[in-house]
Amino acid sequence: MKKIDKSKTLTSTTTTRVRFGEVDAMHIVWHGNYIKYLEDGRETFGYEHGLNYLYIYEQGYILPVVDLKAQYIKSAYIDDVIRIETTYIASPSAKMIFRYKIYRDSDSTLLTIAETTQLFQTEDRKLVIEKPEFIVAWEKKHNIFIPKK
Amino acid sequence: MKKIDKSKTLTSTTTTRVRFGEVDAMHIVWHGNYIKYLEDGRETFGYEHGLNYLYIYEQGYILPVVDLKAQYIKSAYIDDVIRIETTYIASPSAKMIFRYKIYRDSDSTLLTIAETTQLFQTEDRKLVIEKPEFIVAWEKKHNIFIPKK
Amino acid sequence: MKKIDKSKTLTSTTTTRVRFGEVDAMHIVWHGNYIKYLEDGRETFGYEHGLNYLYIYEQGYILPVVDLKAQYIKSAYIDDVIRIETTYIASPSAKMIFRYKIYRDSDSTLLTIAETTQLFQTEDRKLVIEKPEFIVAWEKKHNIFIPKK
Amino acid sequence: MKKIDKSKTLTSTTTTRVRFGEVDAMHIVWHGNYIKYLEDGRETFGYEHGLNYLYIYEQGYILPVVDLKAQYIKSAYIDDVIRIETTYIASPSAKMIFRYKIYRDSDSTLLTIAETTQLFQTEDRKLVIEKPEFIVAWEKKHNIFIPKK
Repeated sequence: MKKIDKSKTLTSTTTTRVRFGEVDAMHIVWHGNYIKYLEDGRETFGYEHGLNYLYIYEQGYILPVVDLKAQYIKSAYIDDVIRIETTYIASPSAKMIFRYKIYRDSDSTLLTIAETTQLFQTEDRKLVIEKPEFIVAWEKKHNIFIPKK
Repeated sequence: MKKIDKSKTLTSTTTTRVRFGEVDAMHIVWHGNYIKYLEDGRETFGYEHGLNYLYIYEQGYILPVVDLKAQYIKSAYIDDVIRIETTYIASPSAKMIFRYKIYRDSDSTLLTIAETTQLFQTEDRKLVIEKPEFIVAWEKKHNIFIPKK
Repeated sequence: MKKIDKSKTLTSTTTTRVRFGEVDAMHIVWHGNYIKYLEDGRETFGYEHGLNYLYIYEQGYILPVVDLKAQYIKSAYIDDVIRIETTYIASPSAKMIFRYKIYRDSDSTLLTIAETTQLFQTEDRKLVIEKPEFIVAWEKKHNIFIPKK
Repeated sequence: MKKIDKSKTLTSTTTTRVRFGEVDAMHIVWHGNYIKYLEDGRETFGYEHGLNYLYIYEQGYILPVVDLKAQYIKSAYIDDVIRIETTYIASPSAKMIFRYKIYRDSDSTLLTIAETTQLFQTEDRKLVIEKPEFIVAWEKKHNIFIPKK
């Protein structure tokens, strides 16, 4: 993953407990279930920082995920409480990038790092090339706006 | 489950292999994942008998599940191929009832029996009291129509 | 569902927010995802009342779900916070029965009622006919033990 | 993704139909559900080429996914049949790498490309540094073995 300017980020943290149905035959969380945890992180971020799904939808946009990367370092087990740190990485272009660190909460073991990229589409699914004004305003309000070169 | 008039039913069969991510820490398919198999069964039924989701949607209806019953008799394991028999149970009222038998395909062990009930709603989510005409026509075509008393 | 003796029950409550990935094309929580909420409820119950999965497993037992019933009354939507009330229904026989009421938390609309039955098995998956001693002791401690007739 | 030596690969193809419960509020397959399709692809590969999960497990190994990358190019919709091409990328080191191309089957539109990396662990979850002998033998049999430099 690329180096980022840490002054242009914003972070939220949430915790969740591993569900029995989320672990696999190896007694660890099935790797595909982490995608839900990333979504938990993103939604918590949205609530805390005023950028939740319904608000974005009301502005006329949807945000499909176009890129996903995850590295699984350690495993989570049944009954583990995991902590999801979700960081918004401001970008000069019209995309929404989040990075995630997932920890076992009890001992802060780093379990997974991940990154997702979302693009803006209009409701009729046309790609949006220019960053929407409400996002520019939101980034400026949080002092994380990066102008295009 | 109630006794049914077997002359007023229609059945489809499909098979699927248990995915690794569908088994739980007991190495058996997590009970919640059977709900997906019921959906597989229902969708196969729809394709075979001309009643699939998109067609119903085009007629202006959605079909939320309002009742679900499942009995788990034996377990399915990783790599098992399971066979889903899905039976449409004609009803005089405006509902869509399916019964399911799920077998391990290799030895025809009965694993699960289940039943779902769906009601008709218009796209704006109003409940439909009268059975839609296209369903009446479809039931008549298949000789499973049961008139109201 | 059968009438129950309410003096022989024990209840826990937990809340969770609907995840984006849990809603379906009708913009409501896909009915199969409620099975996860039931599990959330059961696990919260286990933590609050000293009967969690790992503890039971350490006693040498697993608890497969053998029966599931759910009635879907109203729908949950994206971003809804739902409240899950999970009630342990003491039984004279060797089974573990839970009933669930799931509400939209904001206005306490009842969304779903459900019931699950689990049987006791030893780790090598033999059915246990007699209620395990640690469960009898746990029920007695909570004044919900019902002797066999 | 890195350039690969195409003579050292082996491919399998499978198809599956999008389930109703797999699409999200945007009426497209929720991005997290593609992880299941990758698993479908990997399991089909295992069956066709004699390297399925249970066989590997019987050799004393488990294969946790440690790295996952996915690019979402186009969307899959309800009722789409998707085609998953799964390619084993031989590596000189003790890892198992698969690349995936997921297409809409009807018109061969490329929907998603992905890559997973798995490491070998013993059943007691110790990392295996040397490629297991049964994998070396399997790669040699298929003429895709790459010796370490």
